[in-house]
Amino acid sequence: MKFTVDQKVFSKALSDVGRAVTQKSLVPILSGIKVIAEDEGITLIGTNSDIIIKRFISRDITSRNISIEQIGSAVVSERYFTELIRKLPEDVHIEVSDTQVIKVRSGDIFTQLNGFRADEYPQLPEIDQTNLIGMDANELKEIIKQTVFATAKNETRPVLTGVHFTFSNDKLTAVATNSQRLASRINEVHVSKETSFIVPSSSLNELVKQISDYSGIVKMYSADGYILFETDEISLYSRLISGQYPNTSKLIPNEQKTVLTLDREILVKGIDRACLFASEWKNNNISLSIKNRKLCISSGSSEMGSIQELQEIKDLSGDDDLKISIDGHFLKEALHTIMDEEINIKLNGSMRPIVIESTHQTSSYLHLISPVRSF
Amino acid sequence: MKFTVDQKVFSKALSDVGRAVTQKSLVPILSGIKVIAEDEGITLIGTNSDIIIKRFISRDITSRNISIEQIGSAVVSERYFTELIRKLPEDVHIEVSDTQVIKVRSGDIFTQLNGFRADEYPQLPEIDQTNLIGMDANELKEIIKQTVFATAKNETRPVLTGVHFTFSNDKLTAVATNSQRLASRINEVHVSKETSFIVPSSSLNELVKQISDYSGIVKMYSADGYILFETDEISLYSRLISGQYPNTSKLIPNEQKTVLTLDREILVKGIDRACLFASEWKNNNISLSIKNRKLCISSGSSEMGSIQELQEIKDLSGDDDLKISIDGHFLKEALHTIMDEEINIKLNGSMRPIVIESTHQTSSYLHLISPVRSF
Repeated sequence: MKFTVDQKVFSKALSDVGRAVTQKSLVPILSGIKVIAEDEGITLIGTNSDIIIKRFISRDITSRNISIEQIGSAVVSERYFTELIRKLPEDVHIEVSDTQVIKVRSGDIFTQLNGFRADEYPQLPEIDQTNLIGMDANELKEIIKQTVFATAKNETRPVLTGVHFTFSNDKLTAVATNSQRLASRINEVHVSKETSFIVPSSSLNELVKQISDYSGIVKMYSADGYILFETDEISLYSRLISGQYPNTSKLIPNEQKTVLTLDREILVKGIDRACLFASEWKNNNISLSIKNRKLCISSGSSEMGSIQELQEIKDLSGDDDLKISIDGHFLKEALHTIMDEEINIKLNGSMRPIVIESTHQTSSYLHLISPVRSF
Repeated sequence: MKFTVDQKVFSKALSDVGRAVTQKSLVPILSGIKVIAEDEGITLIGTNSDIIIKRFISRDITSRNISIEQIGSAVVSERYFTELIRKLPEDVHIEVSDTQVIKVRSGDIFTQLNGFRADEYPQLPEIDQTNLIGMDANELKEIIKQTVFATAKNETRPVLTGVHFTFSNDKLTAVATNSQRLASRINEVHVSKETSFIVPSSSLNELVKQISDYSGIVKMYSADGYILFETDEISLYSRLISGQYPNTSKLIPNEQKTVLTLDREILVKGIDRACLFASEWKNNNISLSIKNRKLCISSGSSEMGSIQELQEIKDLSGDDDLKISIDGHFLKEALHTIMDEEINIKLNGSMRPIVIESTHQTSSYLHLISPVRSF
């Protein structure tokens, strides 16, 4: 293998792919990045046990200085190779001999790195091209951001550590819950066949980072046990979580005693202040109540002190005799993912979950938070 | 105590003073900030066992909204008070009752914090106003930055964990060393009496942060066991390190076999790359040598690989048959603190320390690094 590549382009691609690589792998070769030089361009692959990231640097894009002199492949230490390329000043010349020694030259700088045997690197999973779903990248990123935060952080019920995607009747329903709160989002998507799968939250967070600047179509191919998200430059393979996802549709109440319309940004700041006085070992317990048609947010502990603030309610319908204790952090996180200026909070008494929804009829997201006991 | 103050000004001052406060203090009151309201303005004090930071918010500055309604003082939890003030939207009203409860109001937000007894807060040390040394803030910051990094990180010889300041013959000499490297800087300062003291590196680093935007005169008052750095708004008291500082002037060689003139920025980048291949458990050992009147920087390990690069030497005088092994991180840190575009490296063979100096005759700084054994 022998090629020359622009330092900036190569360095950026290496650090993207390197995000999948873990240094702690028990299999030494997985601490490396596979570099493949072909006539069309350079491919980089990095993986850990959960995801594989593949990045392609095309030779066709004329703004980049790439020339492939000899095709081939090599596996190099992610840590040292990425750091080294980042610190080089200009075009990088790579040459790999048969003895797995990678020679890197840039100007008057000569380095040699010890590599791994490229043929020992694991093969990429095979993909069934028929199971294709295409989605707009910005829509996909928004769906992930509005659900992924609500997944469970501990592994006692593995299915809850991922987001459940269901494609059915030309609709995508994405749901995440940790059993105290739930986030759900519905989008219109054309699919030829019904399907559903659970994607680990860590893979989705990584996907959002990898495609953060991309706004075209993301192709999704699901297979037994894994899924591939693909653009022209990036491929991200993730394992899927196996198991039965709980039926969450029954949890969402059909009616409500009270509906409050509130300014989202003002509410977030008030909840944030109240969380200061809420203790973690009491589920970040804060109280919401209605006083003289104003929303009263309060919290306190004997150790620190207390806070109480009143906020305007833009619209109030139903029962106004109300007091509920909920986890302030859960409410804050849900409100942070919403883009609307105004939101509706729907309540059914102090022992039933609250629902946070858009004020628009065509609402596509919904957040549900269970109350905490305040005694 | 009762006063109203602009939220932004108060929040900034609290977070500055809070930098001195440690949550882990065995004395609970030291985890608080003392707030004093007087006719002239508001004073905030925070301390740990090493430093005291005092910040004054003057009522005279008309751009700030401050009104003192009742003088007095209180001690409040640094952690919760600072966080709370930071999250408030507008002017902050503070009122303290006799029962040590601090009431904070801002718009429709009402909070109560439990305080400490203000009269139990330690008194500030008394200062002998005659031992005054005035220094330009920017000069002082530069002196600190060019020396403090070279102090010892471990406490086996406590005097080496501070910077030694000597005022003598209208000159200030600041020296720091960890016994493998030394940084020294000389400035002209008018002083009425000769004095010397050792200031802990942590206090100096904090001082640089506190006065980062200030460019007037810093007043320094030294006393037995502590020192005060003072501007109109900030006072920083630090303990001094007691003990005899080693006589370092003898370590600096008077002559040299070889002098190299090099571009500082290019050299830093080369050393940085070479450090990648230098192992920590071998003292970050990198090699410098001269090949065909070029500087050859190299390092390597059997595990990772090797690097070698050649750099132009702008000027070379003396013996050009030379090879020396030194700690690359020490060299990098020294070069980072220098502002000159070109620097001189003076060498006396492979077993003697190297000297890094300015190319100007009126040089005020000097860095000395001992070689490491490369076998």
